[in-house]
Amino acid sequence: MFESAELGHTVSKTRYEEEAPQLRADLLNVQYELKEAGRFPVIVLINGVDGAGRGETLHLLNEWLDPRYVETKAYGVPTEEEHERPPMWRFWRDLPPRGKVGLLFGSWYSLALQGDDGQGRIVDEISEHRAAAIVRFERMLVDEGALLVKLWFHLSKKDQKKRLKSLEADNKTRWRVTKEDWRRYKEYDRFRRVSEHLVRRTSTAEAPWHIIDGSDDRFRSLSVGHIMLQSIRRRLELPDHGVQPCEPPILRGQLDQRNVLNALDLGQALQKRAYSAELRILQERLGRLSRDKRFRSRSLICVFEGNDAAGKGGSIRRMVQALDPRQCAVVPIAAPSEEERAQPYLWRFWRKLPRQHRITIFDRSWYGRVLVERIEGFCSDADWNRAYAEINDFEAQLVDNGAVVVKFWLAISEEEQLRRFKEREEVEFKRFKITEEDWRNREKWDAYSEAVCDMVDRTSTDIAPWTLVEANDKRFARIKVLRTVCERLEAALG
Amino acid sequence: MFESAELGHTVSKTRYEEEAPQLRADLLNVQYELKEAGRFPVIVLINGVDGAGRGETLHLLNEWLDPRYVETKAYGVPTEEEHERPPMWRFWRDLPPRGKVGLLFGSWYSLALQGDDGQGRIVDEISEHRAAAIVRFERMLVDEGALLVKLWFHLSKKDQKKRLKSLEADNKTRWRVTKEDWRRYKEYDRFRRVSEHLVRRTSTAEAPWHIIDGSDDRFRSLSVGHIMLQSIRRRLELPDHGVQPCEPPILRGQLDQRNVLNALDLGQALQKRAYSAELRILQERLGRLSRDKRFRSRSLICVFEGNDAAGKGGSIRRMVQALDPRQCAVVPIAAPSEEERAQPYLWRFWRKLPRQHRITIFDRSWYGRVLVERIEGFCSDADWNRAYAEINDFEAQLVDNGAVVVKFWLAISEEEQLRRFKEREEVEFKRFKITEEDWRNREKWDAYSEAVCDMVDRTSTDIAPWTLVEANDKRFARIKVLRTVCERLEAALG
Repeated sequence: MFESAELGHTVSKTRYEEEAPQLRADLLNVQYELKEAGRFPVIVLINGVDGAGRGETLHLLNEWLDPRYVETKAYGVPTEEEHERPPMWRFWRDLPPRGKVGLLFGSWYSLALQGDDGQGRIVDEISEHRAAAIVRFERMLVDEGALLVKLWFHLSKKDQKKRLKSLEADNKTRWRVTKEDWRRYKEYDRFRRVSEHLVRRTSTAEAPWHIIDGSDDRFRSLSVGHIMLQSIRRRLELPDHGVQPCEPPILRGQLDQRNVLNALDLGQALQKRAYSAELRILQERLGRLSRDKRFRSRSLICVFEGNDAAGKGGSIRRMVQALDPRQCAVVPIAAPSEEERAQPYLWRFWRKLPRQHRITIFDRSWYGRVLVERIEGFCSDADWNRAYAEINDFEAQLVDNGAVVVKFWLAISEEEQLRRFKEREEVEFKRFKITEEDWRNREKWDAYSEAVCDMVDRTSTDIAPWTLVEANDKRFARIKVLRTVCERLEAALG
Repeated sequence: MFESAELGHTVSKTRYEEEAPQLRADLLNVQYELKEAGRFPVIVLINGVDGAGRGETLHLLNEWLDPRYVETKAYGVPTEEEHERPPMWRFWRDLPPRGKVGLLFGSWYSLALQGDDGQGRIVDEISEHRAAAIVRFERMLVDEGALLVKLWFHLSKKDQKKRLKSLEADNKTRWRVTKEDWRRYKEYDRFRRVSEHLVRRTSTAEAPWHIIDGSDDRFRSLSVGHIMLQSIRRRLELPDHGVQPCEPPILRGQLDQRNVLNALDLGQALQKRAYSAELRILQERLGRLSRDKRFRSRSLICVFEGNDAAGKGGSIRRMVQALDPRQCAVVPIAAPSEEERAQPYLWRFWRKLPRQHRITIFDRSWYGRVLVERIEGFCSDADWNRAYAEINDFEAQLVDNGAVVVKFWLAISEEEQLRRFKEREEVEFKRFKITEEDWRNREKWDAYSEAVCDMVDRTSTDIAPWTLVEANDKRFARIKVLRTVCERLEAALG
C-alpha cells in the first residue's frame, strides 16, 4: 500500500517554480467556483506518519487558498463537554458548510488509531466494528453531497528517523523534537501495520485515500495541490445528487390491510380522577429518577412525533413539569436555518444533544426526513431510503454513549383530528395551532400512515424502540407517555 | 421596594377564567407580530425568591406562547468549557435571535447574587463594580435593539416558610423540598437585603424590574402575561433604532496635522538575511511560550486590522507556523451570517473565544464596527459612538478571565498600497486578493485614517493596547508583530 510512497519522489526547484504559480491560480479559481455554486462542502482529511509534512500541508493550503472560505480544525484531547457526548460529536460540530473547505487535522482516523483511553498509544488492531462505522459515516457524508479528500502522508521508518535527527542537530529546531516524538518513533512498525489495515479498509469508491510521499517538500506540495484541484473540479462537474439508484419500494398492505397503526385500540381512555392521581405519582417518579445518582453519567433523549393535533405539546409539558429546568431542554423542530441547510440533515440534531445528566425533548425530530420530507418530495427517494440506516446508526451512537432514547408516535383517528382542528379554529388562543398546511396534510392521511408504518418497521430497534401511543383520549396518552419514560429510565439505570 | 409585593394580592377564579383566554390570544398575536417584524429579541429574566413561582412561570409561558419561537435557558454550575471563558460567555451563547423570546432562568443576576465560588452561597454585598457591569451590559443589549423584560418574583419570609411546610405536608410533593431549600430559607434575610440593593441598582430607564407578588398563582400568572404583552406591544410601536442622540464628534486635526498614523516612520526596513535569522529566533520563542506551563491557565487573543494589502495574512502565517495547530485557530471575519445578523454585533466574536491554553487570531475583528461600519454607514452614528465603550468592556472581560489581548494595526502608505494593488492584478494567484471594493475603499483613505486615529485614541488601553506596525516593508512588519506577541506573552506570564 505504501510502496509507491517510499520510492523517494522529488521535484526540482525549477519545475516547482514553473508549476506552482499556475496551480495556485487554478486552485483559487475552483475554490471560487465551489463557493459560488454553494452545493457541497470539501472535507480534507490530513493524516499519516509524524514528520511527513501534515502540519506543513495545513500551512500550505491556508496560504494557497483564500482563507475566508477555509476552516481549519485540529483535534487534541477531548474537552469535558465533548467527552460527555458520542465520540463523533466533535467532528459533527466542525463540519464545514456547503461552499467551504474544511481542513481536518486528526479527525476520526486519529480516534480510530489511538483508541479511547486518551493516552494516545496506537491500538493493536482496528476492530471491524469501528472501521465499518467509519465507512458508513463517510458514505453518509458523500450521499449528503460532501466531497471527501483523504490525504495520507507517508514516510519510511528510515526517513522518519533521519528527519527527527536533522531537526535535533540544528540549534534552532531542536525544541521541536520532544520525547513524545521518539516514543512514537518506536511505535512505527505497529503504527504502519495498523494504519495500513485502516487505510485499506476505508479506501472506498466514494472516498478513496491518496497516499503521498512526505519526504520531499516540493513533491508533496504539488501532489496535494493537484489532488485538491482535480477532486474539486471533477465533483463540480457532477450533477447535484450522486444519483444513487433508489432502493426498491417496500411491499406493504398488499396482502392484507393490517398495519401497526390500525392495530391500535384508539378507544382507550382514562377518567379525570384516575388521571390526576396517576399523573402525580408518575411525575414524582420521573422527578426522582432525574435526580438519581445513577443518572449522572447517563442522558435522556425523547422524540415526539405524531399526527397533527395529536397532543404532543401537552404530553411534553406534563414531562417538563416534573423536571428541573436546568436539566431539561425542549427543542421544537421547524424549518432549518441558513446554517443548518448548509449541512447534512442530521447536523442540527447533533448540535442539540444533551450532556450527561441532561434531558432533551425533541418536538418533532430527525424523523422528518422519512415523514414530511418523503411525502412532500423535499428530498429524493434515494435520500429518504438511505435515511433509515443512517438514523439507526445515529441512535446507536447515542445509546453507546449512555443515552436513553425514547421515541413516541402519538396516533389519533381521522375523525378525532377533524374534531380538534375545528375546535382549534373556534378558540382564539388555540387558533395559532392550526394552519392551511394542517388541512393540506390531512388530505395526505394515507401517505403519512404508510410512511409511519415504514418508519416503525425500519427504525424500531431493541436499543431505541418506538412506542405507539393511542392518543384519541389526551389523558390516556399523557399517562402512557410518562409511564413509558419512567419504565425505560428504570430499566436503563438497572 | 418589595412592600407592594407583600400585600397579599389575589385574583379570583372567576376573574382569572374570564381574563386568561383573551390574554393568551393577545400574547400569541404580539408574538407573531414580533416574529414577523424580526426586528428585536425579547429577553425575559426570571429571578427572585425560591418558591415564588419562577419555575411555574417558565411552564406558564411555554404553554401560553408558541413554543417554536421561544428558547428556554436555565443555568446551573458552569461546565468546564464555560468555566474557561469569561463568566458572561454562557449568556452570550444563549441570547435569543431577533424575532424570538428567550426565557432566562437564573442569568447574570444569579451570578451576581451567588458569587464566583460555585457554592451557591449568597454574597454579603454586591460590589459596585459588578452592578455597574450589569447596567452597562444591559444598556448595550437595549442599544442593540433588545427588549429586556426583568421579572422579580417576591415572597415574604413568612410565606416562603408556609410554602415549604405545605409542600412537605403532602406525601406527593414532599420530595420536592430539599435540605438545600431549608438552608436557603435561613439565608432569607441576607438574600432580601442584598437583592433589594441589586434590584434597585439595576432598575434603569431602559431595563426596569417588575416586582411580582408570588404568593397567589392566578395573580402571578395574569401579572406576568400583562407585563409581557404591554412590553412587547410598546416596543413594537417604537422605531427600529432607539434614536439616542449621537455623541458630539471628536475634535481632531483642527489644531495641527499630527496624528498617530502620520507620526509613523514607514521607511523602516529589514534586510533578508537579518529577517531570516530573527524570524527563526522569534518563532522558536513563540513556540516555547505557547508550551509554557504558565500559559495553561491563560489564553491569547490577537487582533489584526490594517489597510487593505498591508500584509495581515502574511504576518498571521508567520505566527501560525510556530504554533501547534491543535492549539491555534485563525478566524477570518467577513460579512455576518443569517444567525449572526440576528444578534448583537459582538455576539459572533464571543462565539469564537478561545478556551484556556488556546490561541485565537482574528483576521479583522469587532473593530469593524468603528471602521468599515462607521465609514460605509452600515450602522448609525450613535451605534459606532457607543461601540468604543462596549469594546473596552468586552476586552476587560477577556483580560479579567486571563486572556492576553494583542491588537495590531498594520499601516502602509497610499503609494505603497497602490504598488501592491497593481502587483496583485498582475500575478494570477494574487488576483483574488484585489476587488473593486478595494479600489473604492482607497478613495476613502482620509475617512479611514480618521477612524483609525479615533479607534486608537479610544480603545488603546493599558490592559489591551494597540500596536501600530509600520508595514511598508513586509519583513520589518512581520518581525515587529512576532516580537510584540512574544513580549506581551512574556510580560503576562511573569
